[in-house]
Amino acid sequence: MEYLATISVMLKATVLDPQGEAVRKSLASLGYGQVQKVRVGKHLELVLEAADREAAGALVDELCHRLLSNPVIEEYSFSLDEGEGPR
Amino acid sequence: MEYLATISVMLKATVLDPQGEAVRKSLASLGYGQVQKVRVGKHLELVLEAADREAAGALVDELCHRLLSNPVIEEYSFSLDEGEGPR
Repeated sequence: MEYLATISVMLKATVLDPQGEAVRKSLASLGYGQVQKVRVGKHLELVLEAADREAAGALVDELCHRLLSNPVIEEYSFSLDEGEGPR
Repeated sequence: MEYLATISVMLKATVLDPQGEAVRKSLASLGYGQVQKVRVGKHLELVLEAADREAAGALVDELCHRLLSNPVIEEYSFSLDEGEGPR
């Protein structure tokens, strides 16, 4: 089966996010002061082959933990859809 | 009202994504050949103040279109939740 995994990798809430803060300041200086907080992370979409949903989930979990995120300072979440999806 | 906007910004499907392709090749060389396609984009979380959900949606749409994405080569999607959420 083919699965589409949609992953987001964000800095943990306790870790300072200078990129997000830079975006917030830029927005504020452009007149968007109502934006109070910004966090920036990565969004990944993976198309992968797996026997079933459970195997796909286990694979994505392993990829995220070992390679796509830094578990010391980042956290990740993902969702799985069957088929390749719209992309 | 305070809203949490969760935004993803991705290169359009027709635009080459060298970063995603680099990740795919790395995964393949590490033994994860079952990952067939990778696209990498940005994930943003904004906490913002707006009168109601409609105003919040219009604001986020404007921010995405004008500042947070490049509409020539990127597309964005977002969801809105009331309150600041877990972060």
